[in-house]
Amino acid sequence: MSQSIAVIGGDARYLELIRQMQLENNMVLVGYDQLEQSYTGLEQIELNQLNVKDMDAVILPVRGIGNAGEIDAVFSSQKIHLEKAWFQSLNKGTKIFTGIANDYLKTACEAAELELVTLMDRDDVAIYNSIPTAEGTVMMAIENTDFTIHQSKVTVVGFGRVGVTVARVFQALGAQVRVCSRSDADLARITESGARAITYTALAQTASDTDILINTVPAQVVDASVIRELPSHAVILDLASKPGGTDFEYAEKRGIKAKLAKSLPGIVAPKTSGKILAEVIKQALKLQQKGAEVK
Amino acid sequence: MSQSIAVIGGDARYLELIRQMQLENNMVLVGYDQLEQSYTGLEQIELNQLNVKDMDAVILPVRGIGNAGEIDAVFSSQKIHLEKAWFQSLNKGTKIFTGIANDYLKTACEAAELELVTLMDRDDVAIYNSIPTAEGTVMMAIENTDFTIHQSKVTVVGFGRVGVTVARVFQALGAQVRVCSRSDADLARITESGARAITYTALAQTASDTDILINTVPAQVVDASVIRELPSHAVILDLASKPGGTDFEYAEKRGIKAKLAKSLPGIVAPKTSGKILAEVIKQALKLQQKGAEVK
Repeated sequence: MSQSIAVIGGDARYLELIRQMQLENNMVLVGYDQLEQSYTGLEQIELNQLNVKDMDAVILPVRGIGNAGEIDAVFSSQKIHLEKAWFQSLNKGTKIFTGIANDYLKTACEAAELELVTLMDRDDVAIYNSIPTAEGTVMMAIENTDFTIHQSKVTVVGFGRVGVTVARVFQALGAQVRVCSRSDADLARITESGARAITYTALAQTASDTDILINTVPAQVVDASVIRELPSHAVILDLASKPGGTDFEYAEKRGIKAKLAKSLPGIVAPKTSGKILAEVIKQALKLQQKGAEVK
Repeated sequence: MSQSIAVIGGDARYLELIRQMQLENNMVLVGYDQLEQSYTGLEQIELNQLNVKDMDAVILPVRGIGNAGEIDAVFSSQKIHLEKAWFQSLNKGTKIFTGIANDYLKTACEAAELELVTLMDRDDVAIYNSIPTAEGTVMMAIENTDFTIHQSKVTVVGFGRVGVTVARVFQALGAQVRVCSRSDADLARITESGARAITYTALAQTASDTDILINTVPAQVVDASVIRELPSHAVILDLASKPGGTDFEYAEKRGIKAKLAKSLPGIVAPKTSGKILAEVIKQALKLQQKGAEVK
């Protein structure tokens, strides 16, 4: 059954998301005034024209909303702003999809009894997104070194949703991969995959034998004790969410190139990213419908 | 035994080549006046200062020399020019290394009875270089698409020294790879590798199901009949040496993005490329010495 869904703001990823979802749903776009209508085939409306009582779901930008309710809309020249009262105007139970959620959004949804789905918190989204992230990391590695990934010595810090994929991709390209983890099960899995498993204690000890150091852990693990040991040609690529897990100041002082990657999926593969989000949202909406039918 | 080798001109690849070779040989550099001496640790001299009678080998740029003897020297502000007479001044049998050789160089070496080694014609160099070429192709694919390589449909045209590597790398990244070849043995090997083998007749037929088309064949194989069938989001990456194997004019007319890659090893991995060349030159010089000892 077709549902009414408002997309409020968003970036290039949402063009594919809209394309994927409009076949099965009634989509309304807010914050797309700079985009030619022919591109989506959908009319864009102003926020105050939105029939809020008719909405089954609202999709907010991947980056969520600002601390004062500001909406990030790259295809709009206007400032869009969602007051907490606006959330109250929606029907109870309306699903609110967002990439990440801050306190403003959480409290607004809670107060209005709306179901908030934080897409980036979901394991499936994080694992699917790890694919474009790993490809973006490959691109950064090629752009920022004068040697091939093949035969280079790569250390991946962390073996979580992103680390697993990054380690596999660099191994597939012929790098000599070492992966650092705290968990015994991870260390076994890393060894099983053909990479070299090391503990955090060994990170500084093995740094001198590293060409590319890739961090995926959102805590300051790539600190001075590690950076000090890196050879001067080494490159640090930090994939952890802002501010990353690297002592960037110390790296700069030592002349080691260190890059904090920004949301690689949206940059290197917005179409794939949009498709990933569309699939997950579609699934969540279907589950909701099934639930409704059972009742 | 240490040999006297002159490096005349060259680009970033030669910095690593010089670094690799200077431990075992007496290296003299011509065309490096713009480079700080501390970088190589070697003195740069003018062409006329070169003790030509003392040279065991001369290394010319990867791109060879111009049709009037011009030398490509990116680290020099001067114009360097090798007259045919200059070659006559070298001892007979001196080895001349170059990347590619034009008629000017061939006739000059022949007339002076010098042994000309065309590095890029060697299978080993071409195969080693296919690694940075494939990584550069990955970089181009990521930069020029808005979807991931993973799960994309990639057609590789040709299964030679470059095609084999490119097909393997894109498979390793999770693409659905199809490889086109004329040879029955190649088609069997492609199938064995897990890719889909197709003949040239099937190239146009399968084009509509292609996201990335990678050509490695230096003949116009990606013609209008193929380009016409490609979906509008498809990208053509042409790795064949200039002018490539794509009808670029037709691609532009149809609005299909088509890129002719330029010497990717020198761009994405000059250090690795220099190392590859140094290894091959070192080996060639050792063989020469052994030959001399036997006599």
